[in-house]
Amino acid sequence: MIRIAIVGFGNIGRYVFDSVLEAPDMELAGVVRRSASNPPAELAGVKVVTDIAELGKVDVAILATPTRQVEEHAEKLLASGINTVDSYDIHSSIADLRRNLDTVAKDHGSVAVISAGWDPGSDSVVRALMEAAAPKGVTYTNFGPGMSMGHSVCVRSKAGVKDAISMTIPLGTGIHRRMVYVELLPGAKLEDVAAAVKSDPYFASDETHVFEVPSVDAVRDMGHGVNMTRKGTSGRTPSQRFEFNMAINNPALTAQILVGAARASMRQRPGAYTMIEVPVIDLLPGDREELIKHLV
Amino acid sequence: MIRIAIVGFGNIGRYVFDSVLEAPDMELAGVVRRSASNPPAELAGVKVVTDIAELGKVDVAILATPTRQVEEHAEKLLASGINTVDSYDIHSSIADLRRNLDTVAKDHGSVAVISAGWDPGSDSVVRALMEAAAPKGVTYTNFGPGMSMGHSVCVRSKAGVKDAISMTIPLGTGIHRRMVYVELLPGAKLEDVAAAVKSDPYFASDETHVFEVPSVDAVRDMGHGVNMTRKGTSGRTPSQRFEFNMAINNPALTAQILVGAARASMRQRPGAYTMIEVPVIDLLPGDREELIKHLV
Repeated sequence: MIRIAIVGFGNIGRYVFDSVLEAPDMELAGVVRRSASNPPAELAGVKVVTDIAELGKVDVAILATPTRQVEEHAEKLLASGINTVDSYDIHSSIADLRRNLDTVAKDHGSVAVISAGWDPGSDSVVRALMEAAAPKGVTYTNFGPGMSMGHSVCVRSKAGVKDAISMTIPLGTGIHRRMVYVELLPGAKLEDVAAAVKSDPYFASDETHVFEVPSVDAVRDMGHGVNMTRKGTSGRTPSQRFEFNMAINNPALTAQILVGAARASMRQRPGAYTMIEVPVIDLLPGDREELIKHLV
Repeated sequence: MIRIAIVGFGNIGRYVFDSVLEAPDMELAGVVRRSASNPPAELAGVKVVTDIAELGKVDVAILATPTRQVEEHAEKLLASGINTVDSYDIHSSIADLRRNLDTVAKDHGSVAVISAGWDPGSDSVVRALMEAAAPKGVTYTNFGPGMSMGHSVCVRSKAGVKDAISMTIPLGTGIHRRMVYVELLPGAKLEDVAAAVKSDPYFASDETHVFEVPSVDAVRDMGHGVNMTRKGTSGRTPSQRFEFNMAINNPALTAQILVGAARASMRQRPGAYTMIEVPVIDLLPGDREELIKHLV
């Protein structure tokens, strides 16, 4: 059995907990939180600690922390010989994170699988496969409809905003509309908030609509999706068409991919890997030959 | 540059030729055929031989032979230290082929990537990824509309048939209709041919329609496609939905995947691999970090 620690128990951490309990080849060593007191009810009977060393042997730590804390946590854990997986999602700095963690992991005989959510993550695998199938062409990744965490946090930072979410609506060819729902603080004006949002770099290049709602909670929904398309040329044959669609619970899928990546980390040589560098069979439990008979 | 030999120059071999010429990191060592005389016009200037040893150094042999000849060719080539790739497509014996070639390859320091077409092949990668994303659930693979080689060959073997093709029509949930178009020999009766086709094990469990046409050539078309769907549970969250669609030129896609697999063979340790055991990044040419920035 692969012994797993979950680091962080927010939105993603709770779903990782579900997926670890359902995995036939894993056991939960425990959960690492900033405070071990007053754990949530669903952790009754589970070891909750502030220091992973209290959990005994841990094979893989699944980092369910905010993205910006991933690197610091991963460096420490990898240096202590524990594999890590994360769903680091700042696309522009994934290569830097990989280079840094690769050095630490190789120095300490551990493995990191990074950016192992759905985008970056499983979508990246499909994008790479589509490009291999038709090397010349364009892939469009269309997100949504679903809530964008980064855009929602941006809106919440604006003056006069009590709470907000930003929904991503796909318009095709990688172009997105932003539908922003805000609860205002007393005295705040919708037109001022809308102007602040629309001029923010997060929103400036997209069609953006801002609405006042009595309750942001009432419009919150964890559903998300993607539509990826590629039209390209295989060899000298044009118009090869590929499409991948998903309609999913966002944190549940992120968690399941993290758990598969944790399993895969046990099969890689020391170093740091993105999902496209890991054989997909390694994400799955069970006998390899049976998997090949069933899936190939 | 990776030096490639193409073994066989039928339908798939011609498209492999296109894909090798378009690959930025490959050069064509030559083509191996049963006879080196009277090569087709498009091979002008290309070395055509009956024995691969005449081609000098070859890194990878791409087997574009009939499926039933793959094992014999691969064994010989792997034993001489040349990597092989094939699109072996008899699903029920892929695991046996892999086990046999794995032994030969490990004994001689070579690599085989087997069943590297689109199904088995790239579809297998998507099936494995979907299962990793939602471990409990059902995946349906719906083929077509497109010509089935195996079913067409079966019809051609029936008494009274001059030529025939069998089209696969997807009805959803992995159920297919067979549309069979036959040119009859003088004196043959359509009802006799239809009865022979419908009672053959290839067709007996599918809805099958048999039509007489004046020219099979006039209905022949290399277009094919697939629709794969999975509805499953991630962790404890049900109704996660995934879908993959393709509309493609069948031999052109098969050839392009073979060429990607040939490249990938250069990065694996000795042994035999199916596509789900190979990292997708290895199918692609170019700098690894640039690929990660572009695709992850």
